[in-house]
Amino acid sequence: MTQELTCTVTHLLIGRSRDTLETSCVARVEATFEGLVGDQHAGLTRRSDVRVPHYPRGTIIRNTRQVSILSEEELAEVAAKLDLPRVLPAWLGANLALRGIPNLTMLPPSTRIFFPEDAVLVVDAENMPCVGPGKVIQQHNPDVPKLAQNFPKAAMHKRGLVGWVERPGYINEGDSVRVMLPPRVMYSY
Amino acid sequence: MTQELTCTVTHLLIGRSRDTLETSCVARVEATFEGLVGDQHAGLTRRSDVRVPHYPRGTIIRNTRQVSILSEEELAEVAAKLDLPRVLPAWLGANLALRGIPNLTMLPPSTRIFFPEDAVLVVDAENMPCVGPGKVIQQHNPDVPKLAQNFPKAAMHKRGLVGWVERPGYINEGDSVRVMLPPRVMYSY
Repeated sequence: MTQELTCTVTHLLIGRSRDTLETSCVARVEATFEGLVGDQHAGLTRRSDVRVPHYPRGTIIRNTRQVSILSEEELAEVAAKLDLPRVLPAWLGANLALRGIPNLTMLPPSTRIFFPEDAVLVVDAENMPCVGPGKVIQQHNPDVPKLAQNFPKAAMHKRGLVGWVERPGYINEGDSVRVMLPPRVMYSY
Repeated sequence: MTQELTCTVTHLLIGRSRDTLETSCVARVEATFEGLVGDQHAGLTRRSDVRVPHYPRGTIIRNTRQVSILSEEELAEVAAKLDLPRVLPAWLGANLALRGIPNLTMLPPSTRIFFPEDAVLVVDAENMPCVGPGKVIQQHNPDVPKLAQNFPKAAMHKRGLVGWVERPGYINEGDSVRVMLPPRVMYSY
């Protein structure tokens, strides 16, 4: 059995520079098999990094981390844990913020996200929080101490997902989106 | 937590012709980002079919069905259910048959299969059985009635997996292989 949920694209963002994690809001973006056009994480392949320790660092592998997807509700929880009025999706380098999916970060691999103008994303994995976004949050909130250090724990299981483009198309801010969960698999041996 | 299992490549096969589902044994094959070199299912993209009913038929989508992976043990169970002495991996159009993984077909999406010469496959999904392989099995066993019709039920949850190449390399018959399960995700809402 497959399950379907619906939600809304509240923020759509592009990372234009490799010099910063931060992304910038756009109204519309084209999704190709490489990822989001103009985004620094686009590409059919990528060099392996600390997130895939089973590969020698720098190995060319298929890029399953083309797009970063956040939940507005989870972001509000992270802000509350950090005693901040808000944490913006741009500070985490997100490409998409969605409203309406409970526990978005826990959606399983192979979950599919359908946009009205054909684009479809497939969830690769949970995005594990590191200090990078914490440093950006710290820059934007210089009066609050230890935000960089506190971010990973505050954002654990709330830092969203990464995924890749299965079907090209367009994504717009404000899109109503369908989310299709894969059949539940319980492996034991 | 991730779990690891080990197994052996007992058969390695290539589908050289689009005119038949059957595959032929080879000793060694190159895996690229497109799939297995020379195999009919290789390609970065493919046209959508009945297996992805959420797309209009013929839509160009990312090819996550580059490689078909079977379990020798499950294949023996399918043969027993069909009252046949054996069912060969070639008859099901498989590229790989593995020995040593219990319930291989139930491995979850994002399971990774590591080969000694660099190649890594990622599991996309369970391969649901249809009558096609049953027809091939029937051709090879003309004296046993209704094999085509009986195959899908006999092979349910035992017809293996499909997946795609995350890291290029080579695969050899007889390779010892590591299988890494992804973290278990239990989504609820």
